[in-house]
Order: sequence, then structure tokens, then C-alpha cells
Amino acid sequence: MAPVKNGRLLFNEVPTGYPEPGKTTVYDDSQTIDLESVPLNGGVLVKILVVSVDPYLRGKMRDSSVKSYSAAFVIGEPIFNFGVGVVLRSENPSVKAGDHLYGHYPFQHYVVLPNIDSFRVLKNEENLPWAAYVGVVGMPGQTAWVGWYEFAAPQKGDVVFVTAGSGPVGSFVIQLAKLHGHKVIASAGSEDKVEFIKKIGADVAFNYKTTSTWDVLEREGPVNIYWDNVGGETLDAALQHSAKGARFIECGMISQYNSAPYTVQNLMAIVRNELHLHGFIVGSHLPKYRDEFYREVPGKIARGEIQYIEDAKKGLEWAGHAILDVQQGRNHGKSVVIVSEE
Amino acid sequence: MAPVKNGRLLFNEVPTGYPEPGKTTVYDDSQTIDLESVPLNGGVLVKILVVSVDPYLRGKMRDSSVKSYSAAFVIGEPIFNFGVGVVLRSENPSVKAGDHLYGHYPFQHYVVLPNIDSFRVLKNEENLPWAAYVGVVGMPGQTAWVGWYEFAAPQKGDVVFVTAGSGPVGSFVIQLAKLHGHKVIASAGSEDKVEFIKKIGADVAFNYKTTSTWDVLEREGPVNIYWDNVGGETLDAALQHSAKGARFIECGMISQYNSAPYTVQNLMAIVRNELHLHGFIVGSHLPKYRDEFYREVPGKIARGEIQYIEDAKKGLEWAGHAILDVQQGRNHGKSVVIVSEE
Repeated sequence: MAPVKNGRLLFNEVPTGYPEPGKTTVYDDSQTIDLESVPLNGGVLVKILVVSVDPYLRGKMRDSSVKSYSAAFVIGEPIFNFGVGVVLRSENPSVKAGDHLYGHYPFQHYVVLPNIDSFRVLKNEENLPWAAYVGVVGMPGQTAWVGWYEFAAPQKGDVVFVTAGSGPVGSFVIQLAKLHGHKVIASAGSEDKVEFIKKIGADVAFNYKTTSTWDVLEREGPVNIYWDNVGGETLDAALQHSAKGARFIECGMISQYNSAPYTVQNLMAIVRNELHLHGFIVGSHLPKYRDEFYREVPGKIARGEIQYIEDAKKGLEWAGHAILDVQQGRNHGKSVVIVSEE
Repeated sequence: MAPVKNGRLLFNEVPTGYPEPGKTTVYDDSQTIDLESVPLNGGVLVKILVVSVDPYLRGKMRDSSVKSYSAAFVIGEPIFNFGVGVVLRSENPSVKAGDHLYGHYPFQHYVVLPNIDSFRVLKNEENLPWAAYVGVVGMPGQTAWVGWYEFAAPQKGDVVFVTAGSGPVGSFVIQLAKLHGHKVIASAGSEDKVEFIKKIGADVAFNYKTTSTWDVLEREGPVNIYWDNVGGETLDAALQHSAKGARFIECGMISQYNSAPYTVQNLMAIVRNELHLHGFIVGSHLPKYRDEFYREVPGKIARGEIQYIEDAKKGLEWAGHAILDVQQGRNHGKSVVIVSEE
């Protein structure tokens, strides 16, 4: 068989503000691959089906000399993130053609993986769409699960405030909190998103662009459990309206990734209200929760106990746009890029 | 016996910046008291010996309509804080003349306490100066003890950074950390103070007014345990130089009490480095630690295992100056006001 194109999304330059498609990242289809003859050297050839687009990718778009919790992208190389692919050929006895692998992939169509130790073979007995495995049953869902069970320490009667409530992490947290019987306040950035967070059970749902977070928390708080995906002004409002002993689960601060830092005025609430702020990276806690997560969550999705929405772009050439949309909050639900149909 | 003057330090007006003696507080000696005939109605007449001046008093100098963790001072009434007094007369069978009581006192010379349930009779078998019981064996010492044992979660090899290191809380924390074998970095605001924190064992001691905290932490960090008494720019430097999983013990933020808030740039380190920030008020945890504290600490002081320095002003009319000194960091050691000799 003749070689086929192996299009890739390359990291092109470090952005100063928002990451721009065609500038921060460029789509390149100059490489080809011969799927029948490419040497595997004991590895696995995978056709990538879907890759995930997440807020944290912005942090990897930095000068590679700056250290952080996750590796920087390399200029001229494909960006990478969680995805699902199907095995086309294998010289590794633990997987066979047709198996589906979840793990970190470069943003390209085909890849030879020399080592699949960090990948997971997905059984998918519930026959969920593969894209679900990078969202609600992937890293974002795991983030919600780990953060909640490790740090929320929920008490009867606690009020929970969730930001980015329609996103894959926030919407999962809302539903977990409702399963535990809490009053849930949740915010999002459009009327559509607010409708969705109402549908999944939020008791108080509002559009933070048209309604003051401060006023909502003044009326509906104080807050015992704050799930922070956004930081900045919203964190400030949550600090001011925190209940004594509240837990702040610091999952992300997307409002601060692309602009000058907001001056948080109410940090003294940490002392005054005896708050506990817990930052976390899902991977650090996953060994403790992974089996439980994969045992519990796919069934909950299949039975409709955990709902989600997805914003799928078809074609890897649109991944740069998906990245920008996520940073600007213009996606509606979990952002994924469908690289190939199976 | 003729009535005697009962001088008082009154809260006069809410300050906007630093609390000014003669303006924020005024000393008033217009009241008198007849020590022999003042009716006790089942209570206790106490001669106040020493009162404590602490950073947190600034927070009580607010409009009383603003809620916070501790009660606001009342305009026209004496300010109040921890102190030690000696019983002159008692109609309460649980104490007798000559007993010493530790608890919350108004800043005045004599007081009739209708109820002493919240006071502690001090045995003082080690014959420590009474002033020690409002400092290293009082609320500040308890703050260090509770914060360390509740939240530090020290691991072998941890690096500890302590701010306001010559103060009664900071110096206690330094010595606890050294007793546990940690490397201790500590800062203070004058050369004298730096000498003291070296003397009590800090491995790295520096004057934050002449040496960059950022540079010191860059060289000597990262920090596993940060004891925050100051907030603001120092907190920012500690965030940036935090080790993965570090614990931040948020005890106070004195740099922010008298001025516009500093823009903390590195809050994202909470997520990135998976930090745990714990705010606390000593009183919330004291029931768990109080007996242990009074059993252990006086002996450690008497044996010189825990050292402290004290900045004593003699005369209640100087209490307003002591309050300002503490807010400006001009005290040298624990600030106390000697109201009367016994």
C-alpha cells in the first residue's frame, strides 16, 4: 500500500496572550507513513481516533526552560494530550490489532508507540462513544472524582459552588455533589451552558458574564466547598463568601492563563475563615482512585446518572481552533477533536 | 480606703491606615474605683498586671457592623486582649485573693469579672515572669504549637520557611522546627532581629528589608513548610518557591493590614505544586492541644529549650504606642504592656 499522509499539529511559537491557530500552532501534512511497512521494533502502530482539548494545555505552551507540573511543548514538534486510538499492527504481545488504547498521544493521525506501559486498554463494555474516554470517563472525569473524594470532605448541609459548571470537570462535580444531597450553586459563561447546568441539577445556576458572582454568593452562600476552575475575581468572591472551615478545591485558574493577574483582595479570608485550599494534579492521586473510577463511572454514564455534553470538532486541522475556543470559553461541553473515524 | 484611679485605653475611632496613639486609641484616667467596697455580686476583683499586644488587634479596629472572626472593639469602650491579673477579692469559691488569672481583659487597671469561666488559674510552678503567660506560654505560643502540630505534617528533610521569625509565634515555630531536625529559613525586619533568629537556631536568617526574599528562597528552597505571618509579597515569593505538596500555614498577613492589597502573582502555584494552604484561628483548635501545651511548654521555657525575647512597655498609657509599633514591626520580641507591678 502506498504511504498515506500523516498530518500533525505542530507547536510553532510561545503565545503571549491567547493561543492563535496558524500562529501558536500550525497544521502540517508534509509527512507520510507507510502503514504496512513502517517498522515497529517491538512496538505498536496506532491510528488515533480522538484527542482531548483541555484548559491546562495553555500551561504547556511556554518556553521549555520554565519548569512546571507538566512538560512543555517543543517548538516544531506536535503538541500532545490524552486521546484514544485503535491498534493497527502490534509486535507487543499485550495488545492486538483492533484494541483501543487510552493515553498520551501526539496530535497526529498515526503513531508508532515503542512502549505502551502508560497506556490503558479500554474494554468499553458499555459501548460508549470513544470520545467519552477522553472526557467524562477520561482525565477530566478523573479530575472531578479525585478532587471530590480526596478533598471535599462533604458534611450534611454543605453548600457547594462550582465554576465552569458546564465543562467536563465542573458538570461532573455538580452531579457528584447532587448525588451527595448538597445545595449546588454553579456558574457558566452563556445561557446555553446555564440551561445545561440546571438540567443536571444545580439548584442555583447563573451566567457569570451577566450576573454578579459576588451578589449570587452573598444571597445563596456562604460556601462550604468551592470548586475552583477559574481563579481571579471569582476566587476572590468565593473567599469573601466562604463559610468557616470551607474547603477550596483548586483545580485550575483559567481566568488567569491568558492575561495579567487579577488582584485578589480577600486572601485574608484564608486565615479569618480558617479555610483549607488544596491544589492538585489528577495524576498524583490517580493510583489510589483509578480502579474504582473505571469500575463505577462507565456504568453511571450508560445509565444516564452522569450526563455530559461534548463539543467535537472533526478534523485535526481544526484542533488549533478548539484550543483557542477552550481558552476563551467558547466551547459547549467537553472539547474533543475527532482525528479519524474508525 | 479612698477610691483610686482606674485608667483605661479607649477605642476612639476606626483607623484607615496605621492605628495612631491619641487618635485611634486614647488613654483616659477619669474613672475611679474603690477597691474595698466595689460590689462583686458573686464575681472577682482583679488587678491587671500585664496585657498582650498582638498583630491581630488591628482587625478588631473596624466598624462594628463588619463581621470577622473576633469581636470588633466598641468606640468609647476599652480595647481588650489577653492578659494576666491577680485576684484582690473574690466571691467566687473557685479562686481566692492572690490567685493569678489568664484570659481576656479590658485594657484598664482594675476590673470586676462577674464570670471567670473562660479564665485559667495559672499555677506557674516554674516561677516564670507573668508576662511570659501572654507570650510564649500564652496565645502566641499556643498559635505556634497548634499550627505546627495540626498542619505542618513534617517529613524528614523538609525545608521550613518562617516569617516574622523574631516574633513570639515565629521564634517558637523556628525552635519547634529545629527540635524536629529541619533546615529552617527565617526572615525578620532588622539586624537585631536577625541576630536573635540565628541565636535560636535558624540555618538561614535574613533581613527582608535589605535582602530579597525571592533570591533567598531561590537559593535555599524550595520550601516544604511555609509559616505565613505576613502575606503579600512574601507569600508570593513562597508560592513561587514552594516544593510539590508543600503545606502553607496561614497564620496572619500583617503586611496587608494597613495598606492596599499587594497583587499576588503566583496563586497558580497552588494548583501546579499541589499545595495545601491552611488558615487557622488558635482558639478553634485549643481544646485539643491546651492540656499538652500547659504541661510541656513552661518547663521548656524554664530549661531554656524554648527562648524568647520580650518588648515590654511600662504603663498602660503607652499601650497605644505599643499597638502601632507592632503594626509597623518596630517591636523587638513579644510586645506586652506592664499595667501594674504586683
